[in-house]
Amino acid sequence: MAAAVMEIWPDTKRTIGPAIENGFYFDFEFASPISESDLPRIDQKMRELVKSWKGFEKHELSAGDAKKEYPNNPYKHELIEEFTKNGEKVSFYKSGSYWDLCKGGHVENPREQLKHFKLLSVAGAYWRGDEKNKMLTRIYGTAFATKEELEKYLWQMEEAKKRDNRKLGKDLELYLISQQIGSGLPILMPKGALIKKIIEDDLYSEKRKIGYQFVWSSHIAKSQIYHTSGHWGKYDAMFAPMKLDDEDYVLKPMNCPHHFQYYLNSPRSYKELPFRIAETATVYRNEKSGELGGLLRVRSLTIDDGHTFIRLDQTNEELELVLVIIKKILERYGFREYRARISTSDPDNQQKYLGDRDAWVRAEEALKKQAEKLFDSVSVGVGEAAFYGPKIDVMVKDAVGREWQLSTVQLDYNQPKNFEMKYTDENGEEVYPAIVHVAMIGSIERFMGILIEHYAGAFPLWLAPVQVKIVPVSEKFGDYAKKVKDMFNAASIRTELDMDAKSLGYKIRQATLQKVPYMIIIGEKESASGSDMLISVRSRDGKDLGTLSASEFLKKLQNDIEHYL
Amino acid sequence: MAAAVMEIWPDTKRTIGPAIENGFYFDFEFASPISESDLPRIDQKMRELVKSWKGFEKHELSAGDAKKEYPNNPYKHELIEEFTKNGEKVSFYKSGSYWDLCKGGHVENPREQLKHFKLLSVAGAYWRGDEKNKMLTRIYGTAFATKEELEKYLWQMEEAKKRDNRKLGKDLELYLISQQIGSGLPILMPKGALIKKIIEDDLYSEKRKIGYQFVWSSHIAKSQIYHTSGHWGKYDAMFAPMKLDDEDYVLKPMNCPHHFQYYLNSPRSYKELPFRIAETATVYRNEKSGELGGLLRVRSLTIDDGHTFIRLDQTNEELELVLVIIKKILERYGFREYRARISTSDPDNQQKYLGDRDAWVRAEEALKKQAEKLFDSVSVGVGEAAFYGPKIDVMVKDAVGREWQLSTVQLDYNQPKNFEMKYTDENGEEVYPAIVHVAMIGSIERFMGILIEHYAGAFPLWLAPVQVKIVPVSEKFGDYAKKVKDMFNAASIRTELDMDAKSLGYKIRQATLQKVPYMIIIGEKESASGSDMLISVRSRDGKDLGTLSASEFLKKLQNDIEHYL
Repeated sequence: MAAAVMEIWPDTKRTIGPAIENGFYFDFEFASPISESDLPRIDQKMRELVKSWKGFEKHELSAGDAKKEYPNNPYKHELIEEFTKNGEKVSFYKSGSYWDLCKGGHVENPREQLKHFKLLSVAGAYWRGDEKNKMLTRIYGTAFATKEELEKYLWQMEEAKKRDNRKLGKDLELYLISQQIGSGLPILMPKGALIKKIIEDDLYSEKRKIGYQFVWSSHIAKSQIYHTSGHWGKYDAMFAPMKLDDEDYVLKPMNCPHHFQYYLNSPRSYKELPFRIAETATVYRNEKSGELGGLLRVRSLTIDDGHTFIRLDQTNEELELVLVIIKKILERYGFREYRARISTSDPDNQQKYLGDRDAWVRAEEALKKQAEKLFDSVSVGVGEAAFYGPKIDVMVKDAVGREWQLSTVQLDYNQPKNFEMKYTDENGEEVYPAIVHVAMIGSIERFMGILIEHYAGAFPLWLAPVQVKIVPVSEKFGDYAKKVKDMFNAASIRTELDMDAKSLGYKIRQATLQKVPYMIIIGEKESASGSDMLISVRSRDGKDLGTLSASEFLKKLQNDIEHYL
Repeated sequence: MAAAVMEIWPDTKRTIGPAIENGFYFDFEFASPISESDLPRIDQKMRELVKSWKGFEKHELSAGDAKKEYPNNPYKHELIEEFTKNGEKVSFYKSGSYWDLCKGGHVENPREQLKHFKLLSVAGAYWRGDEKNKMLTRIYGTAFATKEELEKYLWQMEEAKKRDNRKLGKDLELYLISQQIGSGLPILMPKGALIKKIIEDDLYSEKRKIGYQFVWSSHIAKSQIYHTSGHWGKYDAMFAPMKLDDEDYVLKPMNCPHHFQYYLNSPRSYKELPFRIAETATVYRNEKSGELGGLLRVRSLTIDDGHTFIRLDQTNEELELVLVIIKKILERYGFREYRARISTSDPDNQQKYLGDRDAWVRAEEALKKQAEKLFDSVSVGVGEAAFYGPKIDVMVKDAVGREWQLSTVQLDYNQPKNFEMKYTDENGEEVYPAIVHVAMIGSIERFMGILIEHYAGAFPLWLAPVQVKIVPVSEKFGDYAKKVKDMFNAASIRTELDMDAKSLGYKIRQATLQKVPYMIIIGEKESASGSDMLISVRSRDGKDLGTLSASEFLKKLQNDIEHYL
């Protein structure tokens, strides 16, 4: 791309252009501004030039020679000075007639391998990311090894734009962000709050079934407790503390120390283990304002947190118990492709890790064994574990094929010691338990953001905030429509009645835009059907389900909801 | 009391002794310390002295003469100097042979009227409440016009002590307060959290039925919004602000401005009114640490908040709608005695109140009309309304006869103007709605504290965190007991099985102390009953319900729960 730009506008000052995830960018100082309408021209020139690019030749130049290659380019001079401050030479790479200062790392055969690319956008970017520096022009592009991969990625991007949770969140009235309240602090509107409640109630019921006990804790605590837990030093997203009774208090970044207070409330015996504590609670993280985006990154996030105190020999069983539920929950939301990523200790670097080696070996074996039992794809990151214990992350692919890290199951040998949490074992001795930290879906807000994009706003029936919209053809069928509505609402089907004096077509279009799973149309025929109570039904994807009895359709809905359809 | 003390210990320095709610106290500087074991002696002397007290004689003394009455008493001298600094005289009252500096206000006939009293306790108290001053000895007592009132009050005090939510909260494992987290920030343990959830779910369902839409908002917001709402200036329990992106944020003291953001999210039409927004959300109030007490006063309180935007002509209907539900909910918790207290404007001081006079008159009439329709006892506090609207408070008497203010329904003409919240009326004009603020039970934590004391921890079946405890006579009946447990749990009855190797008597005692409504005892006879599945049942108040079939008892429980018994 830089070669093409320099061919077209030779007086441009080149700066840097790294590879990034799924593509690349390059920052230029143009003599006169360019825009996205110039991208096709650059693209064309790139395809023309690359035909003659057979490989990359490496050259080494002294600082002086290197600078001569860039007359009037203070950016390159700055880089060259930096790279040569101890007298080193710098490397240049050449392909075709283009060459440039470069650390290297290229494809073998550019004219064959660099075919499947696309320039995406133009943006402003400060030199070296510092707003005190000059604003440069950044051109973004993407490139893949095959045409299929490129096309899939472009489709994903297109789909992601249509499904953007910020756009759908507004259109479907799921949430709002008010500058009077603050960035990253969304207010869930009734439909969004309902989805949150359905997700939370479902998790609550699944967790209760496997023995979690739910507690409730406030959103603030003395700062000191996060020093004890070690969050304070390692955690740079803490909010600023506030004074209360001359002590520092802070919004909680984690629930762990709160739950530990309950464990500590009584002496505990081995008979009580596994001791499972859960809470779906909001924690606060001071994310940078530039990184906030709709529901995907917020400052108040509600975590489905679980902490289980176990004896070491209960690790296997406890892992299986929670991983089975995690899979069940992910599948419930239509995630069919997921994989486990295990983070283990580095056996060559044992002093890095807390606790005895045997416990680690056993725990990592347990993690691998359970992951392999339950997941088709398992990867192991040796040395990726935190110092206090190994973990499993569950990565899921959404409907567009993007991968998200959702669930985390973390083993922890550290916090029981920080908080002196023990139990009396079979021999009457006081010993430390391990803790299994479980977040089945992580932040509910982020999960909702992912779901909005995953479903493109068309939530499955069981999760849809409005499940059925009743649309009478005209006002005179209002009484009958109201009767149907009451019947459905009484059966806990979330049903709305549209009595607006608009045309039928308009009302159906509105319900379709709102992605309501089913519309019930009430006209002459239906309202005259007597005790059969006929209704006409269509789905949001335009399918006509014909005329059927209200009770028959109600039964179908109840059955689908029971099966999470 | 002071007369008796001075008779027994003549070298005591008297200070002050006012009447307080339900009694009185007097602060003394004793020459040598006294204790509660001295109270009977003082009591006896009081009864002896009062026989000769026929009335109170008033005398007026100059500062100099007054001081001569208290040689070596710096406290009285300080008071006398204060009261006479503009040359006034001070009043003394005399009865029998006792006299003292006194502003007056006495019974007519002490020897007849001062019979029903009791000295309660001895405590330390700084002179004039200032910790820099000397610590005096305070004696508390209580007095009533009749023996019955005195006895009732003493019984209430005794009962209240037994029912203290701090004691029961600990004994029944409902909540804990950890100094690692902070004062006034209780952690609800599983049983407490479950009660909170039952209360909240019940309110949610009642409010949904009458058209409230639930939103969700975070626990912090920019401080500025509470300036706009006017809370900042008038509300001294705000937490200290914290900096975020160079702006001040603060824990929310109220939900109102958060809910307003949702109203403001779209232009609103008269067709949407009444527009009902609800959220059961935790707010933060920096109560003084000395005033915190168990659940009755906390710093993080969860309010069952509701805000309804109405046209003025919808006031009557909306009030009736919520007051009916409030009554229903209070009766559900066994509150049988309650009354409405209305706060209205002062017609002689109209400039104090916001909005036009007609709207006030109509609103106050609506409040009175609905209150009189729905409550047997209604009192009106003329001039007690806030400047922005009249309100109804519902006062309830608990099982011990203590009165609590629980529900509040407040009319508000002010906030729509502060936040420029309007709607388009039938004529296409933009006008202000009124807001009805509703808290059906107020703070859930405080309500739980009241309920714990109201029920003395013996929650009714539907609210009990553990509804049934199964107690096998010995281990060999464990399988059968487990089968019964699974059957009850599957029917959503919260059932626990006590498999401890303790005696039957011990286990029944434990379940009774935990105030579990029913115990199921499983022995030889029951486990041999085959397909009938017999069980023996007793209630927590020791009643033997005999041997009956498990399914029959299950049906009884389900029926009782459905009827909130």
